[in-house]
Amino acid sequence: MSKLLVEVCLSPNLYLSYERENAIVVVIDIFRATSAICTAFQFGVHKMIPVAGLDKAREYKEKGFLVGAERDGVPAEGFDFGNSPFSYMTDKIKGQTIVISTTNGTQAIEAARKAKQVVIGSFLNITALCNWLKQQNSEVILLCSGWKNRFSMEDTLFAGAVADRLSASSLPYLLGDAALAAKYMFLSAQKNPYRLLHESSHKKRLHALGLKEDIKYCLSVDQTDIIPMLHGDVLVAMNS
Amino acid sequence: MSKLLVEVCLSPNLYLSYERENAIVVVIDIFRATSAICTAFQFGVHKMIPVAGLDKAREYKEKGFLVGAERDGVPAEGFDFGNSPFSYMTDKIKGQTIVISTTNGTQAIEAARKAKQVVIGSFLNITALCNWLKQQNSEVILLCSGWKNRFSMEDTLFAGAVADRLSASSLPYLLGDAALAAKYMFLSAQKNPYRLLHESSHKKRLHALGLKEDIKYCLSVDQTDIIPMLHGDVLVAMNS
Repeated sequence: MSKLLVEVCLSPNLYLSYERENAIVVVIDIFRATSAICTAFQFGVHKMIPVAGLDKAREYKEKGFLVGAERDGVPAEGFDFGNSPFSYMTDKIKGQTIVISTTNGTQAIEAARKAKQVVIGSFLNITALCNWLKQQNSEVILLCSGWKNRFSMEDTLFAGAVADRLSASSLPYLLGDAALAAKYMFLSAQKNPYRLLHESSHKKRLHALGLKEDIKYCLSVDQTDIIPMLHGDVLVAMNS
Repeated sequence: MSKLLVEVCLSPNLYLSYERENAIVVVIDIFRATSAICTAFQFGVHKMIPVAGLDKAREYKEKGFLVGAERDGVPAEGFDFGNSPFSYMTDKIKGQTIVISTTNGTQAIEAARKAKQVVIGSFLNITALCNWLKQQNSEVILLCSGWKNRFSMEDTLFAGAVADRLSASSLPYLLGDAALAAKYMFLSAQKNPYRLLHESSHKKRLHALGLKEDIKYCLSVDQTDIIPMLHGDVLVAMNS
């Protein structure tokens, strides 16, 4: 049986070096874009349109769309949502289309747009995601959004958790070097993920912004079975 | 006392996101460019001229220089050396100037060329390097050469070893996220670095090329006190 490569791409800026025609790409931005996206679908959003730039987000806002936009950890002015998962826990979003633009997450989606399939991962849907991945018999690229193209501890820990689950399955997954490193990092932090995260810069950044509850929620597992996926330019719930 | 940031840049392609005016850059390519460079200086080479492209290397060869050139783990044809440290263990290089071009290492030197100071690190000079860094009272960027811009296990382990030594000192070093991750990876692999490396792709690549002894030598510590540094476009032994 031929091996199925699982790789972790630690920054959107490295994506071209990892790109593979037959790989499914999982976009990861734990604090907080992909956690917010999973939450929005759990609360009934119909579609989400990821856009990289704030200009584009403003255009949609002017056309009457609901828009979530964040820069540097805080909601961008003049929009309906930031990227706190809590802001999407509302009936107001049910059946709606929401446009989103965030510092890192939407840039990663943009980088991977041409992949054969792009899905959204977070601790909130980790079990559903891993089970689905195992059914696809496909190579996997776990794409960390990072922070302004730099390494992100929390995204890498999540990638390591997925790499660990995939490699523990009976499928012939082969972990690339970054996936191996992320897996060992996750395993060494597993008993207490806060230990590593405690010293991480983005946690400090969010903590300073008073977002302790956001951090806690974004690290909680299996809040939803929904796997958002990119369909053309739009995110939809898988099988919707 | 103000903090001194220590960061690990996991690929030359991410260097622009990590670049800082006041940082010393340590270029790392454990298998095998920076290990070979340290060895060459230990065996008395006078200068080394790193060049990124093989065309440039050929130009120097035509001018009568000794040239070491490697691509994809094997010596490039028509040159005097590859990048095995063992090939530099010869009296032939004493007092000479050698031009070098390798798959990853010289590209990393090229990326960091404008930094205030660029030095060459490997397990072979780790103690001398760390002691010198601690005397500089400076920010540090540990630049992993990686493999064709991808993450490299062995370079990251070395960066983690340096981050660990610096953060254990009495200086006010502050580890960035990638430095923290590399440090924890190194600590979890410390008792047996072969455990992590065993599964790594580049080790497999070199092993397949029959370079087991090279791997072993490149992971041995403190074979030299010399720290090669970039002076203009040329590597020289520090204080030479």
